[in-house]
Parts: sequence; C-alpha cells; structure tokens
Amino acid sequence: MVKNTYMRWRLPFVCLLWEVAMIILFGVFVRFDPEADAHWKEEQRQKNLTSDIENDFYFRYPSFQDVHVMIFVGFGFLMTFLQRYGFGAVGFNFLLAAFGIQWALLMQGWFHSFENGKILIGVENLINADFCVGSVCIAFGAILGKTSPVQLLILTLFQVTLFAVNEYILVSLLHVKDAGGSMTIHTFGAYFGLTVTRILYRPNLEQSKDKQGSVYHSDLFAMIGALYLWMYWPSFNSAVSNHGDAQHRAAINTYCSLASCVLTTVAFSSLLQKKGKLDMVHIQNATLAGGVAVGTSAEMMLTPYGSLIVGFLCGIVSTVGFVYLMPFLESKLHIQDTCGIHNLHAMPGLIGGIVGAVTAATATEEVYGKEGLISAFDFTGDYKDRTPSVQGGFQAAGIFVSLAMALAGGAIVGAILKIPFLGDPADENCFEDDVYWEVPEDEESSLYHMHDPTLKPVTS
Amino acid sequence: MVKNTYMRWRLPFVCLLWEVAMIILFGVFVRFDPEADAHWKEEQRQKNLTSDIENDFYFRYPSFQDVHVMIFVGFGFLMTFLQRYGFGAVGFNFLLAAFGIQWALLMQGWFHSFENGKILIGVENLINADFCVGSVCIAFGAILGKTSPVQLLILTLFQVTLFAVNEYILVSLLHVKDAGGSMTIHTFGAYFGLTVTRILYRPNLEQSKDKQGSVYHSDLFAMIGALYLWMYWPSFNSAVSNHGDAQHRAAINTYCSLASCVLTTVAFSSLLQKKGKLDMVHIQNATLAGGVAVGTSAEMMLTPYGSLIVGFLCGIVSTVGFVYLMPFLESKLHIQDTCGIHNLHAMPGLIGGIVGAVTAATATEEVYGKEGLISAFDFTGDYKDRTPSVQGGFQAAGIFVSLAMALAGGAIVGAILKIPFLGDPADENCFEDDVYWEVPEDEESSLYHMHDPTLKPVTS
Amino acid sequence: MVKNTYMRWRLPFVCLLWEVAMIILFGVFVRFDPEADAHWKEEQRQKNLTSDIENDFYFRYPSFQDVHVMIFVGFGFLMTFLQRYGFGAVGFNFLLAAFGIQWALLMQGWFHSFENGKILIGVENLINADFCVGSVCIAFGAILGKTSPVQLLILTLFQVTLFAVNEYILVSLLHVKDAGGSMTIHTFGAYFGLTVTRILYRPNLEQSKDKQGSVYHSDLFAMIGALYLWMYWPSFNSAVSNHGDAQHRAAINTYCSLASCVLTTVAFSSLLQKKGKLDMVHIQNATLAGGVAVGTSAEMMLTPYGSLIVGFLCGIVSTVGFVYLMPFLESKLHIQDTCGIHNLHAMPGLIGGIVGAVTAATATEEVYGKEGLISAFDFTGDYKDRTPSVQGGFQAAGIFVSLAMALAGGAIVGAILKIPFLGDPADENCFEDDVYWEVPEDEESSLYHMHDPTLKPVTS
Repeated sequence: MVKNTYMRWRLPFVCLLWEVAMIILFGVFVRFDPEADAHWKEEQRQKNLTSDIENDFYFRYPSFQDVHVMIFVGFGFLMTFLQRYGFGAVGFNFLLAAFGIQWALLMQGWFHSFENGKILIGVENLINADFCVGSVCIAFGAILGKTSPVQLLILTLFQVTLFAVNEYILVSLLHVKDAGGSMTIHTFGAYFGLTVTRILYRPNLEQSKDKQGSVYHSDLFAMIGALYLWMYWPSFNSAVSNHGDAQHRAAINTYCSLASCVLTTVAFSSLLQKKGKLDMVHIQNATLAGGVAVGTSAEMMLTPYGSLIVGFLCGIVSTVGFVYLMPFLESKLHIQDTCGIHNLHAMPGLIGGIVGAVTAATATEEVYGKEGLISAFDFTGDYKDRTPSVQGGFQAAGIFVSLAMALAGGAIVGAILKIPFLGDPADENCFEDDVYWEVPEDEESSLYHMHDPTLKPVTS
Repeated sequence: MVKNTYMRWRLPFVCLLWEVAMIILFGVFVRFDPEADAHWKEEQRQKNLTSDIENDFYFRYPSFQDVHVMIFVGFGFLMTFLQRYGFGAVGFNFLLAAFGIQWALLMQGWFHSFENGKILIGVENLINADFCVGSVCIAFGAILGKTSPVQLLILTLFQVTLFAVNEYILVSLLHVKDAGGSMTIHTFGAYFGLTVTRILYRPNLEQSKDKQGSVYHSDLFAMIGALYLWMYWPSFNSAVSNHGDAQHRAAINTYCSLASCVLTTVAFSSLLQKKGKLDMVHIQNATLAGGVAVGTSAEMMLTPYGSLIVGFLCGIVSTVGFVYLMPFLESKLHIQDTCGIHNLHAMPGLIGGIVGAVTAATATEEVYGKEGLISAFDFTGDYKDRTPSVQGGFQAAGIFVSLAMALAGGAIVGAILKIPFLGDPADENCFEDDVYWEVPEDEESSLYHMHDPTLKPVTS
Repeated sequence: MVKNTYMRWRLPFVCLLWEVAMIILFGVFVRFDPEADAHWKEEQRQKNLTSDIENDFYFRYPSFQDVHVMIFVGFGFLMTFLQRYGFGAVGFNFLLAAFGIQWALLMQGWFHSFENGKILIGVENLINADFCVGSVCIAFGAILGKTSPVQLLILTLFQVTLFAVNEYILVSLLHVKDAGGSMTIHTFGAYFGLTVTRILYRPNLEQSKDKQGSVYHSDLFAMIGALYLWMYWPSFNSAVSNHGDAQHRAAINTYCSLASCVLTTVAFSSLLQKKGKLDMVHIQNATLAGGVAVGTSAEMMLTPYGSLIVGFLCGIVSTVGFVYLMPFLESKLHIQDTCGIHNLHAMPGLIGGIVGAVTAATATEEVYGKEGLISAFDFTGDYKDRTPSVQGGFQAAGIFVSLAMALAGGAIVGAILKIPFLGDPADENCFEDDVYWEVPEDEESSLYHMHDPTLKPVTS
C-alpha cells in the first residue's frame, strides 16, 4: 500500500497552530512565580529570608538542568540505536518535547499553580514540565520509527493532558507521594505507549526488519543517551523533593539502586545468551531500571541497602523481559515495542509503585523522627491524621489509577492516530529517516552504489 | 595555486609565544578575588555573611559549568557537521577557546576588576571569559574550514581585545544591560566573523564543494553540540544576572523562547522545502535563535508569553535566512558563511538588541516594583536619575556601537589574516582535516581503496 | 594458542557474588549521614543552621554530578578511540565503575565515616567513591583491550581496597592534603595499572597491531570523553575541598592550568611530528595533564599564574612522553600501555605531588592569613603545631607511599590476574569487541563481505 507521507502542509500547519495557541494561552494565564518576579525583594522581607541564596532557584536549578539533559539528550540519543533512524530519534524527540513542555506548563499550572486566575511559574514548574514530557518520550519509544511527526504532535497534546489529570488525581486527591514518578511518569507513560502501539499494530512490519537492528556506531551514540540517563537519574528522583534531607536522601538511594542494577544486568545479559556474550540493548536499557524502580521511594527512608536490593531485582526483571517477554508480546499480543519500554519503564515502574507503597506503609516515627515523618509524607492540614499504613494503601491505589488512565487514554489516542491523512509511513519504510528528513548521501552509500552488483561492472 | 600549509615551526612558535606572554601578564596582574582568597574568613565577617554558602561560587558555579560545556562541546560539536572536518571543528575550537579565555581574563580584568594594580578573579570572571570566547567561536563558524590554526590564534587575540573594548563601552560607559550578550556576544561576534570571511573571500571555493556537505554520522555528532547549546542556554542567559529573582527569571524566559523557536523552525524547514522534508541544518541551528534573541531581555520582565513570541519569530527568521538569504549573501555579497552564523547569531542578535531596548524602555514601577526597577537596571550612583525610556535609548545605541565595532574590527583583522605565510589551505583543500591533522586511515577508506575501480581488479 | 573466552558462567557468577556481598555488607553497615536522614530537622536546630540551603548537599551536589560524568562518560568515551573496542571501552568501564563505587563506599566508609558500628553516607561519600573508582578507570586504560570482564571485576575489588588503605595512610596518618588526588588517584592509579600491564606482558601483541589504531569517527567519540574530562576537571579538583574560598580557589586554579596546557600540547604535538601535523592522541590526552598536576595544590594559594606554569610544563612533558617515552617503555621495559596513562596520569601525578609539597612548604601567614592557614591545612587538634615546611615534608612522603603501594599492589594483583580460567583474549583477538559482545553486522561490514575479493565475483 502506498502511503502519502508528504509533510509540507500538514506538519507546518500543526506546528504553527499549536504554537499560536500556546502564545495566546500563555498571554492570558502565565506569569512569574514571586521568586522569579522583580518584586522579589519585597517578598523576601515578608518571608524573612536573609539571603538571595534561599531563592528556590538555588535549591533546584542544578537538578533542573540535569533533568533537561535527560529529556533531550538522554531519551533522544538512547533511541538513536537504529541504524537509519538517528535523525528521527533525536529530532522528533526534540520537537515533541519542545512542544510538550509548553503545554505541560499550562496543564500542570491550572491544576497546581493557579492563583487569582494566573499560573505562576518558577523553576519547580520547569522541572515538572520536563517530567511530564518524559512520559511522552517513553511512549515515543514504543512507536519509534512507525509514526509521522504530525502523529507525534497529536499524541503529545493528548498525553500531556491525560498526564496532568492523572497526576492531579494522585498527588492532590489521593495525596500520594511520587517524587521520581514511578507511577505518574513511568507506569503511566509506558502503558500508554504500549496501548497506542497495540492499536497501531502493523502485521507486515517484518518488511522493514532489516532496518530494526543497530550498527556499530549507532550503538555508541545510544550509549551517550543511556549514560546520561544513568548518571543524572539521582537528580531526576531528587529534583522536586523537599529541601534538605529529602533531596539529599533521594540522590543517595537512586545512586545505590542504579549501581546495583548494572551488575545484575550484565550477569543476566551474559547468562541468557548461548554464547555468553553481552548484548548492547540490555546494557543501554536494563541498567536504568533501577532508577525507575526507586522513583517513588527514593525520597523516603528506603536506605542504601534497600536501594541495592531494588536495583538488583530490576536488572534481572528488565533483562529477562528483553530476552523472553518482548518476543512473546509481539507474537501473541501484537504489541510491537521498538525500544522495549515494557522492560525499562512498564515493569520497573510497577515495581517502583509497589516499593513505594510498602516503604510508606512501614514508615515509623522511630525511623523518621516525629517531625521527619510529618514532613516526609506531608501529614499536615487535611491529612494530619493519616497514618503510614493508610498512606501505603493510597500509594497502592495510585498504581491502579495510573494503569487505568494509561490503558484507557492509550486506547483513545491510538484510535485518534489511526485517522487517515496523518502521514504515517508504509510498512517497508518504517525505521527509515529518508521518509521525513533530507538525508545526506554518505561516502559509504555512494561507495555502496559504486559497487552495486546489479550495475554493469567497469571491468567486464 | 600551491599553498604552504606546513605548520611545524609556525604553530608551535605562536602557541608558545602567546602562552609565555600569558604567564608573565598573569604573574604581574592576576590575583584571587577576595571570595576565592584564603583571607575569606576575615572578609566574611566584615561583610556580615552568616554562612559559606553565600560565597558567590555557589550562586554561579553550576551556571559556569553549563556555559563551559556550551563553549567547548556545544560550539565544538555543532561545527562537526562537515564530513571531513570534525577534528578541525572540535580541535581548533578547543585551541582558540583555551587561549581566548586566558586573554579575556586579562582584557576584561583590566576594564572591570582592576583594583590597586591587580586584577582580582572569581567565578564571575571565568563566566565572562567564556562569554568573550563565545564570540570568537561564533566568528570561527563563518570561516570554518578555510583558515589555519595560526590564523585562528591571531584572530582570537584581536577579537578578544576588541570584544573587551566594545563591552566596556556598552556596559560601563553607556550603562547598557546585556546579561546574555545579544549585542556584545552575538551581534558583535557574528558581524565580526562575517566581515572577516568577506575579506578572505575565495572565488574558487567550489573546488571543495563536495566536502561542504555532511554525512549521516557527522550530522548526529553536530546534534550533540546543538542540543547542549539548546539545553544550557537558560544557564548562559542567567549566569551573570543579579542574584535571586533576576537569575531565576532569565532562565525561565530563555526556556520559553527556545521551546517556541523549535516549533517554528520545524514548520518552516518543512514548508520551504519542495518535498516537505526536514533539513538537519535548520534543526541544528535555527532552533537556537530563540536563545540568542532573548539574550538582552531575559533578565528583564519580558514575561513567558513575550519570550514565546520572540522565539516564534526567530525560528522563522533564522530558517528563512538559511534557505533564501545565505545563497544571496554568497553569490551577491561574496560572504561565504560556512555555518550560517548570519542566520543563527547575526539576525537574532540584532533582534535581541531591539527586544532588549523595547523591554527596557517600557519598564514601569508597577511591573517591577520600586526597588525591583532600580535593582533590575542598576539605577544607582551616577545613573539614579535615569528613566526606563532613556535606558531604552542607550540600549539601542549599544546595538549600533556593537555593529560598528564588529564591521571596523572585522575589516582590520581580516586584512591582517591575509598576510602571507600564515598557512591557510588552498581552495581545493578547504574543509579537509588532512591538511593540519594526522588522519587515521579508516576501514571504509581502506575498503574504498581496495575496490578502487581504477586499480586492476583481482578477477580480470 | 586458543583461549577460552566463554563468559556465560564465569561472568554472571562473579557479578552476582560481588553484588550479593554488597547487599549484605550495606545491610549490616551502611546508613544515611545525618544530613540525609529524616531526623535532619532536629539535627539542624542543634547545629544552629538557619536554612535548608546549608545542608552539605547544596555545597557539593553540582560538583558531584560533574565528577560522575567524568567517571562514566569522560573515562568511558576517552577510551573509545580504538576502532573496534568502543563497546568494551564504554561498557566495561561502566561495569567496573558501578561495582567499584559500592565497594568504595564500604572501604572508605570503614576508614573515614565509621560511627558506632555504622558507616554514615552523604554526598561527600558519593564523590569520594567516584574518586576511588577514577583510579581504577585509569588503570583500566593501561590494560584496555587485553583483559576479560571477569579480570576487570577482580582488579576492581583489589584496587579499591588498596586505594582506601593508601588514602587512609596519606590523609589520616600523614595528614596530607590531596583534594584533587594527584597522589591518591593519579599516581597510585597509574603506577598500579602500569605494573599490572607489565606483569600481563604479551610478547606477541603485534598480532593485533592493526586494531590498535583509531578510525575517523572513533576519534570523535573519544573527543567527547576528553572534553568532558577537561571541562569538568575544575569540579573534580574542588569537589571535596573546604566550603567557601577553598572550593572557589580550586576551581579557578584548575581552569587556568588546563587552559595553559592546551597550548603547549598543541605546540609540541606539531613540533614533534615531521610533517608538523597535529595528533589526535595528544589533543585527547595531554591537554588533560594540567588538571592532574594541580590536583594536590589547586585548593592551596597556588595562584592563577602558578597554575599557568604548571599547565605549561605538563602539556610538554605529557606530549613528549607520548612521542618518545611510550615506545621506549614498550620495547625496553615491556610495558604495553594501551591509552598512554603513563603520560596522562603517572608523570603529571608525580609532578602534582611535588607541586603540592612545594606549595604547602612555602605557605605563609602573610599569604593565607592566620585563620586561613589553619583552615587550609587543617592545623588543628593533633596537628595544631605543624608548620608549613613540615607539612611539605609529609606531602612529599605521601608521594613515595602512593608509589610504593601502587608498585607492590600492582605486582600482586597482576599475578592474581594471571590465574588461568579468567577468560582473557588471545593475542590476535585483543582490541576486538567481538570476543565479549554481540556486535551488529554493519552496513560497511556487510558491504565488505559482499565485495570480499576471496568470494567468487558476480561478474566473472
């Protein structure tokens, strides 16, 4: 079947429409948070802050920049492993994230930072917008190489919206803690993406099977993405935690979990391959599962050894998922998951939700201190009588809500993306940059052409 | 024409001469700022600082490191897009920047941090030195592939000098605000570089036309540079702003402008190409124009939606510049601009100067607060009676001063670079690393050789 | 000789054994530092801290993240210069560092953070663990391409142990200052690695000579590693210095030394090559020697011009080492040093130790201030009567202790690594990823295969 992938009018139309809408909505709604406003000096006196260094900017900006790198370089380059889809991986990730952060500032702003008809944004909002877009980058991983940029912009619009609703239910209605987003980002993003790719199932995708692998250098580019995700994950999980000990603790727990995860990933990558050789796909992905799985609990008193145990298990689960579960999902359930997000985000995200629920449920005044317990779980105001075990129950409920939102939302958005005229590629053109990008003719390709055996050889 | 590109005596001579001069001048002039000096404890008491965290180091060091990455990896890798000039792009950028920051510490120190015969340096000086060198990296973009390392070191010496003079006129004499350097860095650097490349015009450059394109992997390397510039630009524009709300605000404005810019770049990249396909050159460059264009105004109350509008326009201007203006500049005005700095830095820089002038001129006490207005524009001492509208006029004057300095300085320096014996490459060797670098024989190349159709084939 | 490099049982066994041991030991010993513990609020009141920002996290976390990038991306990618060992370089570095940081937290913890039977860890411990692993990454550079992952994990276990002992002798017994680790990290790590590679000498290594070179793109990947090391080295040398002026000063000194080092490296790279062309190996490595050589003295009053002089000399020493000393070491002393760590870490490390001793010995109250001198060298408690010149003597002793520990330790560990069954590659398979990794068949390789001259050609 010939598909029309001509983007010249459709893509500019959507980009410009989306962006004009952003400008109008920002004009009506978005203003600076008091800490970023020129009236700050007066504000500061009211709050009795003795120094400019107590501006939230200095507590969070370094973490923000790390998260920013994870979204744009981390996710972008992690997906460059495909031999001829590097432009699409980095470039479309760039496009959807740049749009998504704007829409996320609005959606999350209406729910969480809306005061007197205005959304007031500061550095914490920027981090949360990046987080929200992270869930879209995850979903993109499942459909990588099989959709047009127009489809991706539509997906982003809807997924960000649903993310904000889900986050509002969890954080504001259920009073759930999820600073590193095991539930809101990973579980939601991954099951959403898996549902979308299920709806967009392509029975004849084996026509582009030869392009689904990597080449030597594309695997090295992907390692750039993988390592930046791995290195900055402590910043990701601690970025929006409470000032002081909570941020400090979240970084340490995540550091430990990730370190442990690398060893079990390597062990099982070798163990599950007949020749005992390591597989770059596992090293690039399963080593990150430890970061996903402490997303909820990192800011709690999970303890360093607790983190090591979580990382230990997730390296195994994720690697086993790549080897055994992924082929099963494709052949039996018709879920074509390009990057294996089921192994890196879905299962570890669920584990992260469960670990968070258990860690919360077992919190005691002895371990946290009286003040510490109240502060860690924000047992104040309406929630001042909530106990740790009740909190654990609500945490568990958060997992199911995220899962339900992801499945229902993914089904609807998947159906929307099946609308014709959105410019998706034909089965034989999947995983191929040439469809949407001006691709330079390479030395190698020109060489290839020169020696094309079907051409009349010079010497005959 | 055969050119002598033998560097063995000339390059070491210049490097060693330059560096010995640095050591002597640093020995005579440069000392630590009080906040970096071992006497700090006593200083601290005098300033009534209650904690070590109030050392300027903690306000600015994270931003400094981000700026540092932009200069060395950002600019360096952005220029690796050429198929066989990656060593020169990254390596010469490294060389000129490493020299330039030393000379900038001196030049800017004499103008701004000179006390009792000594230049006192701290973290803010390091940032400003990196900024100054940024303007040289920009100019390098115009002449990329067409000059020898000796020419680049001479260029750096003169451009840093002129940068410091221009910056002194703007910041100290005109009392102009330009924290992110739309005028001092981008306008000055770009028009300086464009003038130099005009003077060095090569009528027969089409002899190396085949090497002016990219290959698949070189475009991915360039995306590393592009993304790091894009991600860290909020740090660039906020790095030397006032502590507290000004830094906070500058980061938010830049974040917004850059996000918006990506969407219009993608829209116009597709729209202006017959087949509607995206062009990597635009994605790598025009997406950054939004950061350039809020360089002056980011620390002011530009507001998030104002930033979105600036980014929106600059994505369009920059992409249109790549498609229509660049060929015109080359064919009609004989300006051979390798990286397209006219589109990324020159035009957006001018826009940035204008946006800054307008934002300053329209500032009110209502928006900034009484204290906030004084603090934002430093209306103290000699300038305590200056009004926003007068400030706007001076801001506008700053644009013209920068432009004039760039054109005059570029003409002089371009003429100096025409001196024979500086080792520039012949027209047919431009954009080719092999001239100045030991280049490894690649698998591909050796393969190429093996199958060279001009060789006697094994089978005949 | 045929070697058995089958990893399927051996590698998983070691990984799982090591990691289970970590979990048990962490469970018994490791807890959060008070600043990362939920009891922090109460702690804070006791310490009279007025704000959360005075948590050590905010003093050190940005530097920690920079150091983290240096270990995993910096060292990892620096070693990708080999044409077919990129997976091993980045991947094995990842593996050994992920294990090493856990074991280092324990070893260093027992020596330095052991209270009431527990090791209390905070952000400073994370930095020190990364530092310790840095010395293993250095040693890995000497044996790169010639060992199995099992050997590397054994090496890491022993080297981390010895590192911690050596560090304890220097820092706690001799009261030596070495914040950037010229002695503890570089001298120790490099001579340890050189001794190991001497013990593992392979007389027939020329069988894999063709794979010891780089290709064009592998050199660009290596530049990513080199630049990140270069850019973040100011964070490395300042990360664990005293709060305030010491951190500030350490960053400035390192910045200056590194800048200077680039110019002399370029000068001598060109000067020592007949055709005067620059060699990427020098640019990637010798430019970093300036950072190594101010490791001990950066936090002292070395002064900016002092730093320039150190960098100046080290660029020369390191480049000369690559050109003249390295072939000598291989042919005469049978030291096969894959990455040239003798030039980048060993010699500059020794210089760094000496510079540190001299800088300490010549410290005066005039330069440091009375309080500053006590604070800079921690002349309190048992050491309150120590004078700068005595301190200089102890600093010098530290060099010899590090060297002795490295040589003795390297000899023992080298002997251990000669145990059969550890799976090292045959001489003809060194520097080849294919031994331990699933390597994708590349376009190029498949092309190569298609045109293999030994195959029957289509046209005959």
